[in-house]
Amino acid sequence: MKNVKKIAIMGHGVVGSGVAEIFLGNHQNIENKTQVSSEIKYILDLRDFPGLSYSDKFIKDFNLIANDDEISVVVETMGGLNPAYTFVKTCLEKGKSVVTSNKELVAEKGAELLSIARSKNVKFLFEASVGGGIPIIRPLSQCLAANNILEINGILNGTTNYILTCMIRDGVSFEDALAQAQKLGYAEKDPSADVLGLDACRKICILASIAFSKHVYPKYAHAEGITKITLKDVEYAKAWGGAIKLVASAKLLENGKVALETSPAFVSSENPLSSVNDVFNAAFIKGDAVGDVMLYGRGAGKEPTASAVLSDVIEALNSTDSGLALNWSDCDYDITEPYENLKNRMYLRVSGSDLCGLDKVFSEREEVGAVCGECAFITPAISYSELAAKTEQLAALGISVDAAIRVLDI
Amino acid sequence: MKNVKKIAIMGHGVVGSGVAEIFLGNHQNIENKTQVSSEIKYILDLRDFPGLSYSDKFIKDFNLIANDDEISVVVETMGGLNPAYTFVKTCLEKGKSVVTSNKELVAEKGAELLSIARSKNVKFLFEASVGGGIPIIRPLSQCLAANNILEINGILNGTTNYILTCMIRDGVSFEDALAQAQKLGYAEKDPSADVLGLDACRKICILASIAFSKHVYPKYAHAEGITKITLKDVEYAKAWGGAIKLVASAKLLENGKVALETSPAFVSSENPLSSVNDVFNAAFIKGDAVGDVMLYGRGAGKEPTASAVLSDVIEALNSTDSGLALNWSDCDYDITEPYENLKNRMYLRVSGSDLCGLDKVFSEREEVGAVCGECAFITPAISYSELAAKTEQLAALGISVDAAIRVLDI
Repeated sequence: MKNVKKIAIMGHGVVGSGVAEIFLGNHQNIENKTQVSSEIKYILDLRDFPGLSYSDKFIKDFNLIANDDEISVVVETMGGLNPAYTFVKTCLEKGKSVVTSNKELVAEKGAELLSIARSKNVKFLFEASVGGGIPIIRPLSQCLAANNILEINGILNGTTNYILTCMIRDGVSFEDALAQAQKLGYAEKDPSADVLGLDACRKICILASIAFSKHVYPKYAHAEGITKITLKDVEYAKAWGGAIKLVASAKLLENGKVALETSPAFVSSENPLSSVNDVFNAAFIKGDAVGDVMLYGRGAGKEPTASAVLSDVIEALNSTDSGLALNWSDCDYDITEPYENLKNRMYLRVSGSDLCGLDKVFSEREEVGAVCGECAFITPAISYSELAAKTEQLAALGISVDAAIRVLDI
Repeated sequence: MKNVKKIAIMGHGVVGSGVAEIFLGNHQNIENKTQVSSEIKYILDLRDFPGLSYSDKFIKDFNLIANDDEISVVVETMGGLNPAYTFVKTCLEKGKSVVTSNKELVAEKGAELLSIARSKNVKFLFEASVGGGIPIIRPLSQCLAANNILEINGILNGTTNYILTCMIRDGVSFEDALAQAQKLGYAEKDPSADVLGLDACRKICILASIAFSKHVYPKYAHAEGITKITLKDVEYAKAWGGAIKLVASAKLLENGKVALETSPAFVSSENPLSSVNDVFNAAFIKGDAVGDVMLYGRGAGKEPTASAVLSDVIEALNSTDSGLALNWSDCDYDITEPYENLKNRMYLRVSGSDLCGLDKVFSEREEVGAVCGECAFITPAISYSELAAKTEQLAALGISVDAAIRVLDI
């Protein structure tokens, strides 16, 4: 008789329940692929879930998992930093492989947890932490392993992409689009982590850590959300030949530092990212050998995210070693280029009773549109510190900068 | 001192030379990722390559590789079925892992070679056989492993996609676009395997074999190329709101059979595949949990393909077992649905001095455009056998069907 590997799931929320349901529903298919027998032994949740076919598996005490040598793979789908961090760390130290969908945990503690996993020869896997069901982590770390990764640009947050899509397609305001997203369950009651860009920022930090083999901490990364995007700018973007997207970017600079920026960007319609709409996500990766690669799909949702978690579970069940390493080193110093130095072409919308002074400050500019007392244009590549200086110069000439959005040049 | 793993490359053509160059150029990066030392010991080619930094590695006798126990990983980039098949089989039987970019080999002999690899506990890997540098094989087999795959639609041949892009964008004829592709090195002197759809067909057979866990042999698959596509149809596709693409499709039917078809298709501009242009490739995959996923990038070329080969080499160097299985069973009978039964909405362009008879044969149709004596329209979903019958009915009414192209409905 075959050895049956035992799994524990911590957290029976949206993702955790999806993992349990798909694991049970597609079990035959999964056993065929893993060539080992496996079953869920525990599900940890403080709530009760009576009436499920697997209600008997629920427990409320984490120590039952930690101290049960039969459990070889633990799935963490609780979210948040605590107690997830303590639980995951304990499981790894006890020699159990851990699979998580928790981007906050990976972005803040990835290097440490990977290091523990290596020392115990078990796996710490987190395909679901970025891009929901889209294969991103494994393609980036394995399929592109022979490349020096030069640049990653991603639409990594479904909530904000849905809101922007509504603004672009239906001409509704940010506030109305947000309300619509909340009504459909695409945005949380407190949407700040999404609309302020923090969620996308955590995800690009994870991708940058893989790409550049050093942990990039979110505290060093610039994040700006979409709350200031107006329909006026959406229309100017269309006139320019593109769309505004919340883009999370990581780029290796010649000085060895990483330019890391999560902010709205004008994306040309020639770029495949411009047609990533609704709650879809995509990561656009540039490698020195492979050139451009894009990975596209549903960036959130119960089943897609559970699909990604289970791909990791299958790998953890199947493997006999810590394997092809997700492997980045800790580095608690700032490897990012200071924000003020980041250079982009910029879209600017300015206003004033007399715009003649513009020529003095931005002699070179690509005009996007103008109406009485207002002008929208694209600047040559300038740094944010140069932009700040020029904004002051314009103010002195009675011209105010009402919107400033970078242009994505890949 | 660390054990140094030895690699042999068979075939120093476009891909093989790319593998050698990137392996040597990015070697530090690759060693960091594999955590084992590795070096190229032999390169098998009948030609001489003097003046390279690694000219001393060339050999002409395959037996040197087969009989050298130091060689643990063999890269096959010769192409064609023979002698690649014999060489690869011998290497696997000798307990060496094999990595190949050879789609013909995998499409014809995949099941057998996978089975030998399993029995010897080594790897047979072929990420580069479909979609060049795009991560497809590993995402499909691993990242989506918890899914039942429902459908795959791919633009899997760069040559034909380049030709169609020229026709669509520049309005040049098929013949002129082909000549242009040949001039740029995107098409071979004898372009028949590409333009007749055979290359794309082999690739969808490989993807279908992974998705449905049974070997789907190309001889059972319908392939139709782009040689009959006219600028007239290209224009009607635009008027309809899409583009003509050569699409390779595999879909699981309710009766358990696989609908397998490689042929031109009208692709709506709402579908991300419609904006895959030039030599780019993409695979659009539908899984029951993950929903829609698209993988996009350079489908051919020296560096992108070598990038994919090297990702497999890294996996083979690193692993201690046959690992997460690319694993499909042989099945030398036809699991495909007969071509005549495949059902699609169809674009038809018909002509005749009197088109009134159309109403009798296609009472329901979505008109795309009409000029004197010609009409273009989309039919409801019909099978190819129904289409043949209706084409005869139309002929009896003096109406000829001048073009028939399926509509891709995903």
